[in-house]
Amino acid sequence: MLSFQGENILSVNQLDRDCIERIFAVAKKMEPYAKKQKRTNVLEGAILANLFFEPSTRTRVSFGTAFNLLGGLVRETTGMQSSALAKGESLYDTARVISAYADAVAMRHPDSGSVAEFATGCSVPVINGGDGPNEHPTQALLDLLTIERELHRFDQNIDGMHIALVGDLKYGRTVHSLSKLLCHYKNIKFSMVAPDGLQMPSYILDAVDNAGHKIEIVDKMEGNLAADIVYQTRIQEERFPSQEEANKYRGGFRISQSIYNAHCKPNSILMHPLPRDSRMEANELDNDLNLNDNLAIFRQVQNGVLIRMALFALTLDVADKVEQYEVAVPWFSRKRDS
Amino acid sequence: MLSFQGENILSVNQLDRDCIERIFAVAKKMEPYAKKQKRTNVLEGAILANLFFEPSTRTRVSFGTAFNLLGGLVRETTGMQSSALAKGESLYDTARVISAYADAVAMRHPDSGSVAEFATGCSVPVINGGDGPNEHPTQALLDLLTIERELHRFDQNIDGMHIALVGDLKYGRTVHSLSKLLCHYKNIKFSMVAPDGLQMPSYILDAVDNAGHKIEIVDKMEGNLAADIVYQTRIQEERFPSQEEANKYRGGFRISQSIYNAHCKPNSILMHPLPRDSRMEANELDNDLNLNDNLAIFRQVQNGVLIRMALFALTLDVADKVEQYEVAVPWFSRKRDS
Amino acid sequence: MLSFQGENILSVNQLDRDCIERIFAVAKKMEPYAKKQKRTNVLEGAILANLFFEPSTRTRVSFGTAFNLLGGLVRETTGMQSSALAKGESLYDTARVISAYADAVAMRHPDSGSVAEFATGCSVPVINGGDGPNEHPTQALLDLLTIERELHRFDQNIDGMHIALVGDLKYGRTVHSLSKLLCHYKNIKFSMVAPDGLQMPSYILDAVDNAGHKIEIVDKMEGNLAADIVYQTRIQEERFPSQEEANKYRGGFRISQSIYNAHCKPNSILMHPLPRDSRMEANELDNDLNLNDNLAIFRQVQNGVLIRMALFALTLDVADKVEQYEVAVPWFSRKRDS
Repeated sequence: MLSFQGENILSVNQLDRDCIERIFAVAKKMEPYAKKQKRTNVLEGAILANLFFEPSTRTRVSFGTAFNLLGGLVRETTGMQSSALAKGESLYDTARVISAYADAVAMRHPDSGSVAEFATGCSVPVINGGDGPNEHPTQALLDLLTIERELHRFDQNIDGMHIALVGDLKYGRTVHSLSKLLCHYKNIKFSMVAPDGLQMPSYILDAVDNAGHKIEIVDKMEGNLAADIVYQTRIQEERFPSQEEANKYRGGFRISQSIYNAHCKPNSILMHPLPRDSRMEANELDNDLNLNDNLAIFRQVQNGVLIRMALFALTLDVADKVEQYEVAVPWFSRKRDS
Repeated sequence: MLSFQGENILSVNQLDRDCIERIFAVAKKMEPYAKKQKRTNVLEGAILANLFFEPSTRTRVSFGTAFNLLGGLVRETTGMQSSALAKGESLYDTARVISAYADAVAMRHPDSGSVAEFATGCSVPVINGGDGPNEHPTQALLDLLTIERELHRFDQNIDGMHIALVGDLKYGRTVHSLSKLLCHYKNIKFSMVAPDGLQMPSYILDAVDNAGHKIEIVDKMEGNLAADIVYQTRIQEERFPSQEEANKYRGGFRISQSIYNAHCKPNSILMHPLPRDSRMEANELDNDLNLNDNLAIFRQVQNGVLIRMALFALTLDVADKVEQYEVAVPWFSRKRDS
Repeated sequence: MLSFQGENILSVNQLDRDCIERIFAVAKKMEPYAKKQKRTNVLEGAILANLFFEPSTRTRVSFGTAFNLLGGLVRETTGMQSSALAKGESLYDTARVISAYADAVAMRHPDSGSVAEFATGCSVPVINGGDGPNEHPTQALLDLLTIERELHRFDQNIDGMHIALVGDLKYGRTVHSLSKLLCHYKNIKFSMVAPDGLQMPSYILDAVDNAGHKIEIVDKMEGNLAADIVYQTRIQEERFPSQEEANKYRGGFRISQSIYNAHCKPNSILMHPLPRDSRMEANELDNDLNLNDNLAIFRQVQNGVLIRMALFALTLDVADKVEQYEVAVPWFSRKRDS
């Protein structure tokens, strides 16, 4: 098991079930701080280098917020153009430089392996915020935490659940990583619901199979969404020979409230990695689902903050000290659950 | 009257005279904190999402500074490209997501109505930092606070004053909003000084008239600047058929010290929404006015910080607690009034 | 001597030896805070306006980090497009505006003299972070501090040392400024190692000569690198008529471990202003030097944070108060020296 203290979090492959449960325990402890029922200053004076060499407002702000919620400060960089990398600096050099500034690093970069390469030169913990098509471990963890918490509402567990993964399973990084994490659990039924040519890669199917789970591979939603968890993804038009063909396919993989009523279970939980494309031609999860209590997409976002707080607290070894550094919350917070 | 606590500040139409006076009272109380004669930590641990989907350094930094001056932290986003909105995410979804991160939102966006639409999905107070041609309420409030404070230097009040609005009154968002706020006051004389085709829209003239104010509509500055307040705006060349015609018009609407001496009153206050264009072909307020004590443009900026501090303090319900959270100011501040 | 309190730091020409030694004394006192062995909140509530009108991730983050390490907060702007300057606002106006927001300013701008011009309108201390080809005083100070500290490892001093400046000495801003600062010291031997046409300008040579130092002007590295300090710079291809000619020249000015073994002294210290270009066609300092303890380039970065902390502490007059505002460091820091 990872010791966490001073470690990098680069890949879901680093995480076994004990690790995951330790992260989740800390994440849940973070909830009152994230909701401003309490405040802590345990990272007062610590500096996060939030390095986003590829734009991603959501993930960037989530990492920065998580660090702020523990009392720390954030220095940030966005885009490649203005960076020394554009002038030929190696990732190793950039990492050595950033080590002089920061106490922790969150990093996104378009190239597979880049974050791990950076980490070799960096003397403070590095958390992978997405390295191109490769890894995005905090997304996988927040997805899994959401599944666990949503199932608990109905006295269910991850062990024994039925999950339908829907859409572009071939290129969707999030469903790959989530599937890997689910290999640490037992007795899951997977429905892999994807159009021809966008099915889950065989190495993921093999891993799921080796974990003793049950797999159904299907090419349409009808009859295959009666799962505890329905995890929708975007079918990206660039995967198809033409826009017309893309639209034809996508039409069969959109979920609306009437589709939900017709094909899901009464309490199927709907998830999505976000952003959800609300334009007519995409529309993976229709806005008419916004009133459906089982639409968990915004709770995923909240869980993302908890996961990132937990990883900072664990790698900087303050998970057991947050209470000790509590401070007052004098302001009005009208936060409600999303 | 607005309760303020947990409310959004989207439009000057929300504000009656009691509201305005409450905001101004809090704003004035903020002055020693803005000038670093005192410090407060009342928003320690609170996070502002400073969302500028359209660039505006001045307004963005002013909102961020105001939040920092109350002890809070700022997470920021600038531009559209890197945002999920560019990937088809609805403003509603973005708002739900941001609600998981922030305790307050300041937002600028190029589209009319966008900030209000965002606010419907957002569970924390949203302050409009400008939604395209529509509204920019903090600018109107800082303009009005400046007028009040400048007139007080000469024992005058907003009630009964004479104000000249100069330049592009048709498209200038700031003069529209300011005129609306002035409808809550009494007995004002308005000189609407604008070239043909750029006069104040009739719906604003009607509102001013209905408030019982006096209006003079004129097309040249000569003889019409002897007002207590002279509020200059930019005449934008894109409003005219050609650059030449624009320059011809603009020539008649520039104010310099010699114009001031010839046409203003001895203590006419000069205002401008900024930025002031200092290029020769624009030059609405000549640099030779920089030594004129009645040039109030930089005091407008200072008042902008106070207004934004006041709105954060009111919506987060800490206006009465700032003193309680005072902290030491050990550093040297050579701040002087601008 | 500069009083520092409330002063601008615009040029190395402001600094005499007493100044330099005062800055270095404060910088060294900052080291435990930069390394997180201690924490201070002496600038709690102070706001730095970190204005980078030209991109530079490294310098921008270094200034921001330095301010954070003293407990202060940072508001930031990057690039020109989104700034009011792009709309014709004068630097004077921008400075008056920023004075309403900040307690200190760090500024980079592409135009020579721009930062000094800005400072005339600014009522808080301004530190020049590079104004085009003109000045970058914090780089010169961090270079000099690095030289002093590296020589101390071998019981040597700046007085009496031998320094080789290598590469593009004509256009390299950093070697000009460093040479000026070294004029306040005694008895230095300079080897000016540059290709034809890229030698040190005569006004710098004259200043060095007038300071009583010894100068050797040479056009190749062989036989000329046996110095205490070897300060390498980039030979920029745009200085040459063609890429081919540039590569021909550059080939003779690259340093690798085998060149080091052949031509340097056993403990020659290697420096570089960074970023180091690691692409094959540039490669001024080969990656095989990363294991060489005398490669000081990452210690330069660390010293840069100390210099910037010292300048903020001095200009805001808290250099003697940092200990008084110490706070706990509860988190794990795996910082090691680079």
